[in-house]
Amino acid sequence: MGLTNLEGMEAIGAGIYKLVSQLYPICRSITGDGFRQSLQLIAQHIPLELHEVPTGTQVFDWTVPKEWNIRDAYIKNPDGEIIVDFRRSNLHVLNYSLPIRRKVSLGELKAHLFSIPEQPDWIPYRTSYYRENWGFCVTHRLLESLDEGEYEVCIDSSLEAGHLTYGEYYLPGQSADEILISCHSCHPSLCNDNVSGMALATFLAKHLGQQSPRYSYRFLFIPVTIGAITWLCLNESQVANIKHGLVVACVGDPGKSTYKKSRRGDAEIDRAAIHVLRHSGLDYEILDFSPYGYDERQYCSPGFNLAVGSLTRTPHGRYPEYHTSADNLDLIKPEYLADSFSKYSTVINILENNRRYLSTNPKCEPQLGKRGLYEAFGGRKKASQHELAMLWILNLSDGDSTLLDIAERSGLCFEIIKYAADALVTHGLLTEYGKHLASKHP
Amino acid sequence: MGLTNLEGMEAIGAGIYKLVSQLYPICRSITGDGFRQSLQLIAQHIPLELHEVPTGTQVFDWTVPKEWNIRDAYIKNPDGEIIVDFRRSNLHVLNYSLPIRRKVSLGELKAHLFSIPEQPDWIPYRTSYYRENWGFCVTHRLLESLDEGEYEVCIDSSLEAGHLTYGEYYLPGQSADEILISCHSCHPSLCNDNVSGMALATFLAKHLGQQSPRYSYRFLFIPVTIGAITWLCLNESQVANIKHGLVVACVGDPGKSTYKKSRRGDAEIDRAAIHVLRHSGLDYEILDFSPYGYDERQYCSPGFNLAVGSLTRTPHGRYPEYHTSADNLDLIKPEYLADSFSKYSTVINILENNRRYLSTNPKCEPQLGKRGLYEAFGGRKKASQHELAMLWILNLSDGDSTLLDIAERSGLCFEIIKYAADALVTHGLLTEYGKHLASKHP
Amino acid sequence: MGLTNLEGMEAIGAGIYKLVSQLYPICRSITGDGFRQSLQLIAQHIPLELHEVPTGTQVFDWTVPKEWNIRDAYIKNPDGEIIVDFRRSNLHVLNYSLPIRRKVSLGELKAHLFSIPEQPDWIPYRTSYYRENWGFCVTHRLLESLDEGEYEVCIDSSLEAGHLTYGEYYLPGQSADEILISCHSCHPSLCNDNVSGMALATFLAKHLGQQSPRYSYRFLFIPVTIGAITWLCLNESQVANIKHGLVVACVGDPGKSTYKKSRRGDAEIDRAAIHVLRHSGLDYEILDFSPYGYDERQYCSPGFNLAVGSLTRTPHGRYPEYHTSADNLDLIKPEYLADSFSKYSTVINILENNRRYLSTNPKCEPQLGKRGLYEAFGGRKKASQHELAMLWILNLSDGDSTLLDIAERSGLCFEIIKYAADALVTHGLLTEYGKHLASKHP
Repeated sequence: MGLTNLEGMEAIGAGIYKLVSQLYPICRSITGDGFRQSLQLIAQHIPLELHEVPTGTQVFDWTVPKEWNIRDAYIKNPDGEIIVDFRRSNLHVLNYSLPIRRKVSLGELKAHLFSIPEQPDWIPYRTSYYRENWGFCVTHRLLESLDEGEYEVCIDSSLEAGHLTYGEYYLPGQSADEILISCHSCHPSLCNDNVSGMALATFLAKHLGQQSPRYSYRFLFIPVTIGAITWLCLNESQVANIKHGLVVACVGDPGKSTYKKSRRGDAEIDRAAIHVLRHSGLDYEILDFSPYGYDERQYCSPGFNLAVGSLTRTPHGRYPEYHTSADNLDLIKPEYLADSFSKYSTVINILENNRRYLSTNPKCEPQLGKRGLYEAFGGRKKASQHELAMLWILNLSDGDSTLLDIAERSGLCFEIIKYAADALVTHGLLTEYGKHLASKHP
Repeated sequence: MGLTNLEGMEAIGAGIYKLVSQLYPICRSITGDGFRQSLQLIAQHIPLELHEVPTGTQVFDWTVPKEWNIRDAYIKNPDGEIIVDFRRSNLHVLNYSLPIRRKVSLGELKAHLFSIPEQPDWIPYRTSYYRENWGFCVTHRLLESLDEGEYEVCIDSSLEAGHLTYGEYYLPGQSADEILISCHSCHPSLCNDNVSGMALATFLAKHLGQQSPRYSYRFLFIPVTIGAITWLCLNESQVANIKHGLVVACVGDPGKSTYKKSRRGDAEIDRAAIHVLRHSGLDYEILDFSPYGYDERQYCSPGFNLAVGSLTRTPHGRYPEYHTSADNLDLIKPEYLADSFSKYSTVINILENNRRYLSTNPKCEPQLGKRGLYEAFGGRKKASQHELAMLWILNLSDGDSTLLDIAERSGLCFEIIKYAADALVTHGLLTEYGKHLASKHP
Repeated sequence: MGLTNLEGMEAIGAGIYKLVSQLYPICRSITGDGFRQSLQLIAQHIPLELHEVPTGTQVFDWTVPKEWNIRDAYIKNPDGEIIVDFRRSNLHVLNYSLPIRRKVSLGELKAHLFSIPEQPDWIPYRTSYYRENWGFCVTHRLLESLDEGEYEVCIDSSLEAGHLTYGEYYLPGQSADEILISCHSCHPSLCNDNVSGMALATFLAKHLGQQSPRYSYRFLFIPVTIGAITWLCLNESQVANIKHGLVVACVGDPGKSTYKKSRRGDAEIDRAAIHVLRHSGLDYEILDFSPYGYDERQYCSPGFNLAVGSLTRTPHGRYPEYHTSADNLDLIKPEYLADSFSKYSTVINILENNRRYLSTNPKCEPQLGKRGLYEAFGGRKKASQHELAMLWILNLSDGDSTLLDIAERSGLCFEIIKYAADALVTHGLLTEYGKHLASKHP
C-alpha cells in the first residue's frame, strides 16, 4: 500500500499542488455555491456524493444556517475610486456578510473594518456565521491611509433559506469497520488552511480507491463545525463503525509534521501516527488532545469520543500567515504536500496491517537457520534488523501484541516488522491470531 | 471562599503575626500550663474546646505521661553569678527536665549541657519526654567559656500525675465528611516551628467559621506525637469521617512552599495542594510521603492511612534556625504568613468546589455563541482562557472527571475552571453529577 | 548470606580467576570432549551431574547435532611452513569444522578464512554449528601477507553421532521454588565470554552449598541455545518451579555492571538486580529485555516467559575484544570477578529475604523509645538510617509491601531494611505475613 518510490512521490506532490491551485481562487464559505463548485472540482478525481441539508434543520444543539452567496463587493473612497475589491481577494469581505449598498462616514466604516496592525500588508480572514453583520477585511496600511469623507460600501451578497452542502466518498473495504478522513472545506482563498487538506484527502481517496483495503474508508468534505455536527447528527447510527480517523488540515507548509492525539490519547490511530512521525527521520511534534482546533472537537465530544486525531504540519494559529492573505500559493510546496501524503499513506498502511499473530513454536526459538532465515556463521557481533525483527515477533507473538506493539517495544520500524512477519508466515512459523482461533474452535 | 484582595491579605498577615507574637514567649511542652495558656489565647479567636486526658491513660502502644510544669531555672557559676537564666529564654531548660537544685562540678554539669558547636551563639531546643533526666541548653560560646569549679543548678519544675491537654474546634458543614487541620502546639519559644502553624490554623478556622462550607472542619491543637496518638485513640469511631487533612507547621519563614504528600500519594488533597503550588507563580517543592516528620506520621500509619499531607514553607530540619533560639520573631514575616494562609485557603476552596458534572449536550459541542458565551467573530488565532475552560469542561464532563481533573488535564487554573463551570450551569449546559443521578432515579 | 569482608572477597576473586585460568586453554564447542573436560574441572568444586543427550534427539523445533571433536589443525604455506596452528590458539579453527586434509589454491583458501580487518592482530571466533563447512580464523595481518601458491590445510576433527553434554547441580532448599543460574559453557578460549561466567557460577554454587537457603538452586552449564532448548524440552515438567533466574556471562571485564531485564520487565529478579546495582555505589546500566543475547532468549520465549534476566559486566558485542583472541586472561581481573560475585550474592540475598511482614501496631507508631530502639533526646534535625528504616517498615507493613518494596519506596538499601526488620521482629513489633495468616486461620 506504500508509495515509496521517489518519482511516484514527485508526481503525487505535483498533482496535489495542481488541485490546490484550482481550488484556491474560489470564494468558499460554510454554505453556498463556492462550496459546491469546490466539490465539483474534487469530483473530477473521485466519485464524490454531494449532500444538501436544508436551512433550519436541527442538528443537536445547532440549526443549519441560511445559505450565503456572494457575487461582488467593494469600497469606494470619497473620490469614487474602488479601494477595496472583492474581485482581487475574496478575503476582503467579512465571510457571511449581509448585503449592503450605501454611503457611510469614515467613522461608521471603521467599525466594520478588520486589519492586522502587526502585519500591515496582509488581509485578515474573518467570519460572522452566526451573528448577522457586514464588514470588510483590509490591510492595515490601507486602513491607516483613509481620510475623512463619505465612502460607498457595496456587498452584493444574499443570506437566504437554502442548503448546507457537503461531500462524501465512501469506499467499501473487506470489513465494515471504517477509517474516517475528514477535512473542513469552507475556507475561501487560504491555501494551507485548508485547501491543502482538501487536495491531499482527494488524492488519498483516489490512491485508496485503487487498492482493495481491509478497512472501509469515509472521506468527508464539510464546512467546519456545523458540517461535522450535521454529519454526526444525520448519520448517528453509522458512527459506531468508525474505528479510527484523522482530521486533515494544514498539510503543505514547510513546518514540521504535528500529530494531535485523539481525546482517548492512546488509541491505535494515535500510536500509528506517532510511530510514523518517530520513524520519519524528520523533526516532528506530538500534541495532547485539546477541545480547541478543527472538527476533532466534534468527533471527540464526550457523546462520541471517537478515535480521531489530527495530522498536520504547523497547526492552526501557530504560523504567522494563518488566516491571512499570506496563506497563499507561495506558502505551500509540492514537496511538503508529498511528504504529508506519504505520512498519511504510511499511517493507513499500519492500520491496514496491524494484526496479532501467534508463534507456532512458542517454546524456545524455532530454528531459523535451517529455513535459511538466519545468517549461517555464528559469532558475529550483531544481528541484522531483519533477524532482530523475526526474533522480536516470535518472542512477542503470544496473542497479546499486535505488530505495532512489537514495533514499538523493539524500536524497529513497522515496515521492517511487517516484512519479517510475512516471511515467518510464509515459513509456517507464524499464524494470524483470529485465523488460528477460527481453526481451533470451528 | 477565596481571600484575594491585597488589603485583606495584609490584614490577615498582620493578624497572624500578632497572634504569633503573643504565643511566642510562653513556655510550652507536651503537657502543662504553658500549653493551656496558649489554648486560652487561641480561644479568644475561635470557640475552642479544651480536653484534658489523665496521666496514665493507655493510648494504643503509648501511655499519657506525667504532667510537666516549670516555674524557674538557672545555673550559677562558681562566683554565684547567674549565667543561664530560664527567664531570658525558656529554651535553656531541657524540656521535661526533672526538678533539681544542687551544686555540681563542671564535669558533671557538662554531661547535662546541650549546645550547637556550628552555631556558637544559638541555644538549641532539646527534649526528654520519655526518659527522666535534667539538663540545660546553652550557647556553645558559653559552654566553651566555663572554668573549673562548683556550679549551682536549679530547675524549679514538677513532673507529676496530671493531664495531657489538647484543643479542638469542630465546625459543622453541610456534610459530615471532614477536613482535618492539625498542628502541633507543644514547642516553646520557636516561632516558625510551630507557633506560626498554631496562629495560621486559628485564623483559618476563624475565616471558615464565617462561611457555611460543604465540608465539616476539625482543627486540632495538640502536643506532637502523643497528642495525635491520643486523639486518634479516643476518637477512633470518628476517624472515618476524615476525607482530607493537612498538618500545619513552619508557615512563616521566607523559604518556598513545600507540600509533603500523604502516604496514598495521589489523594485528592495531594492533587489539590500540588495544583495550588503549581499555579501559585512562585517556586515550590513537592515531597513524597515519608514516615518521618510531624503528626502525618500518625494519621498516615497503616491502620488509619488517612489522606493527610503537610503544607509548609521550608520543612523541618532543612533551615539552619530549626529547633534553635534563632527560630524567633525575626525569622518569620507577615507577608509569608499571609501567603501561606492564602495557599491553605485556596486548597480548601478546591476541595469545597471539586465536583463532577455532566454536559447536557454530550454529542458535539453546544452552540456557545447563541448564548453569548463565545466571541462573535470567527477566524481568530486563539480562544480566551474562559472559552477554553468552557470547551474543556464540556468535553470532559462525562461523569468521569472532576473539575480538578479537568483543570489538570487542561493546564488551566482551578479558579478559571470553576468560574466557567458556573457559567455553563447557569446556561443549563452543565448539571451536577449527583443531582442528575438523583433526578433520574428518584 | 552476604560475603562482605574484604579478605573473603579477595580470596573469592583469586579463586574464580584461578579456575578461569584452568578452563581457558580447553577447546570447547557445543558438544564434545572439550565440554566434558571443562565440566570435570568444575566438578572438583561442586557435585556436578553430567548429562549426555544422544545426537538426533528432537528438542522442540531443533535436533541435537552430531558430536564434534578435534585433535589438531594447521595451514602450511607453499614452502611447507606451518603458518596457522591450532595448538597455538584453538580459535584458529572455525568451530564445528568438518575434517579436511588437502592442498588448496590461495583463492580457495581465502573463501574459508575469517579475519577482522579493523583489528589486524586479533583472531576472530567463528562457528558453523548447523551448516557443515570448514574454515580457519586468522589475524588479518596474516591473511594480507599470503602469496599465491598451493597451501596445505589440515583439520583433524570428527563430526559424528555422539552426545550433547551438559552439567547440572541442583541444590535443594527449604522450598521447592527454584532460582536458576545458567551459563553457556561452550565457548573455547574466550575468557570473559564465558569462562568467567562458568567459574563465577561454580563459586556461587559452592558458596550456596554451604548455606541452607530458602530457595532451591539449579545451576546449568550448557552449550548456548541448543543446550537451553534441550534442557527446557527434557525438563518441561519442572520448569514451573523456576521462580527467578539469571544468565551469567561476561563477569570479569573492567566495564560497568549491566543488568538486562527479563521479558516480564518488572519481575522480582529484575527489581532485586536493579536495586543491587543502584546501591552498589558504582556506575551501572539497565537494559530492557530483547530477544537477542544469551540463553535468556530461550527461558523468556513466550511459551515459558520465565523471570530470567542477565547480569553481566559489559554485555556481548559491546567490547572490542568480544569474540576475538583478545578476550584472554589479560582482559579480566580477579577484582572484577569478585565484584560480580558480590553482586550475584547480594541479589540472591535479597530474594532469600524478601518477605512480607505485618506491623503488630498498625494504628499509630509503636513507641520505639521505651524499647531502646530510638534515640532518647528529642529535637534532633535528622533520624538515623536505622531509625528511618524501622519507621518505613512499620508504616508499610500492612501486608501489601515486601521488604524490597519498602527498600525501593524509602530509598534505603535492602540490607539496612532487612536489619531493621529483624530488630522489629525481635521486639515483637513485626510478624511475618504468612505466619500471621497461618495463626489466624488455622
